[in-house]
Amino acid sequence: MSKSVLTIDGLQYSNWSRAIFEEMREGGVDAVHATLVYHENCRETLLRFGEWQRRFEIHQDLIVPVRQASDIELARESNRVGIFFGAQNCSPIEDDIDLVAIMRRLGLMIMQLTYNNQSLLACGCYEAEDSGITRFGRQVIREMNRVGMLIDMSHSSERSTLEAIELSERPVIISHANPASFHAAKRNKSDEVLRAVAQSGGILGFSVYPFHLRNGPDCTLDEFCGMVADTAELMGIDHIGIGTDLCQGQPESVLTWMRNGRWTKAMDYGEGNKANAGWPRPLSWFSDNRHFNNIAEGLYLKGFNNDEIEKIMGRNWLRQLTEGTRPQAGAVY
Amino acid sequence: MSKSVLTIDGLQYSNWSRAIFEEMREGGVDAVHATLVYHENCRETLLRFGEWQRRFEIHQDLIVPVRQASDIELARESNRVGIFFGAQNCSPIEDDIDLVAIMRRLGLMIMQLTYNNQSLLACGCYEAEDSGITRFGRQVIREMNRVGMLIDMSHSSERSTLEAIELSERPVIISHANPASFHAAKRNKSDEVLRAVAQSGGILGFSVYPFHLRNGPDCTLDEFCGMVADTAELMGIDHIGIGTDLCQGQPESVLTWMRNGRWTKAMDYGEGNKANAGWPRPLSWFSDNRHFNNIAEGLYLKGFNNDEIEKIMGRNWLRQLTEGTRPQAGAVY
Repeated sequence: MSKSVLTIDGLQYSNWSRAIFEEMREGGVDAVHATLVYHENCRETLLRFGEWQRRFEIHQDLIVPVRQASDIELARESNRVGIFFGAQNCSPIEDDIDLVAIMRRLGLMIMQLTYNNQSLLACGCYEAEDSGITRFGRQVIREMNRVGMLIDMSHSSERSTLEAIELSERPVIISHANPASFHAAKRNKSDEVLRAVAQSGGILGFSVYPFHLRNGPDCTLDEFCGMVADTAELMGIDHIGIGTDLCQGQPESVLTWMRNGRWTKAMDYGEGNKANAGWPRPLSWFSDNRHFNNIAEGLYLKGFNNDEIEKIMGRNWLRQLTEGTRPQAGAVY
Repeated sequence: MSKSVLTIDGLQYSNWSRAIFEEMREGGVDAVHATLVYHENCRETLLRFGEWQRRFEIHQDLIVPVRQASDIELARESNRVGIFFGAQNCSPIEDDIDLVAIMRRLGLMIMQLTYNNQSLLACGCYEAEDSGITRFGRQVIREMNRVGMLIDMSHSSERSTLEAIELSERPVIISHANPASFHAAKRNKSDEVLRAVAQSGGILGFSVYPFHLRNGPDCTLDEFCGMVADTAELMGIDHIGIGTDLCQGQPESVLTWMRNGRWTKAMDYGEGNKANAGWPRPLSWFSDNRHFNNIAEGLYLKGFNNDEIEKIMGRNWLRQLTEGTRPQAGAVY
């Protein structure tokens, strides 16, 4: 595969640095969905935006903010990485529907309705009971549709996800997860959910986070690409992409923050456990941003043609962002 | 005077309503600098933006947000009022320089460095001692220059204002005040300050708030226009405009908020006093947005020609916004 394949990663939360941005260029990455926050409230979310403003100033030769999907092509032309933002939780909007448009204006293109736990909007995939989309959640879905903020159900539970798809007038995405049929995990998705996502016009970004893979860190590239092939059958070639969930260079304290936020005094191990509390060992064929070519190669060996590989590696994400982040016709905000 | 004179008001904080927006259209107002906040912190400032988002949705036939100066001409063409935002204090940015760019992105085009009291940036016009621009203030001036946010010194004191002008690479404005030579008041400005503002490329917006006028509510239109003529001599015809300080329909509680914020337990009466604590009686020739034509007429009778009147009524403000709110060349934010 040539390096010129448009490459968009549907989720990362790395310990951002010049070295990582350089690796992104080396790996031919054109744009990345960067997680802005996990549990940060409104004010704290602005701190994160502020940190990114400084990165954009300092590293302007390497990275560029994506204010609209077409900026990704400009980033590519100038040999830089476009950064677009998403929140893994609805904490940035607190209890205030007006913050949806405000966050969108600041560049938040994607928001998850929940992160593992029950939120004010919906239920997370670790809760025992899923009562579906809340009253506030229904209003927020409508507002996200209006302003063009993509609804991401990666960490949400089954019923809430299906209801969100039902309620939303626009596509619903799962930026980073895998099919539960490939590997049973609370974070992976049922065929019913995946079919509904595809029918909504949404996308699944395949995760290379070992907890989401069969055989964990020992999952082979061939197994991974087999999963992609099976999912292409299930969802259609236009509704799949990459969402690595790469958390490069993050200390364990960040993992603890993701899992525990401010909500528990007891330690929550998320997808790990007490004996296996830290970051999982990385895959041999994908440990940093220089390895996207391995995935493209693997897909080629699995029998995908160039057009299909281009869709999976980036074109589908570009279409999703182009269509999904445009404000609704006539929307004033 | 015909109604077609471009009319921009350099400051209002009215009790916004459909009736007021309709009066603006009736009065031929094309754009207004609307005060967003007085003492509100960052999070509270977002509440105010949220309220305006709703107004823009509900009253989209009458008002439209000004995201860049050229939107004012679009507003005029569609017979609507363009609203551009300013903060009367630096409270929205708290102690965080990154919030300058964030607030600018949200549409804050103008910020005062102080409101009567000492702030983290500079000294207000009611303090006994003015030690000038602070360390943080110097950084914020540079950042406001960078992102294109106009520095407004309306409520600042003499030394701080002169230092801000010295430090700023871009024009500094006084959106709403009058010359102290016309009427001695803590809020009115010395000839030295006014000359420096003009030399910086900035503008003075003449206030019709009775506390800023000779003879208060009894100031005649002829006296007001005489003041304009004298200031045109002092500052030049390109550096003066209107900044009414109209606070139409506001209850006394809002006046108390402006004056007292959260900073005092004793009552502060601002420009009033215990015996005269409320809103001043309005002028006979300017009490609401339908009366801008009176000012234009008065200027005509005072001997200004049409070109000069157009500059004062709106063209100077439009130029100021066009030049002053553009990000600096190469600025990334």
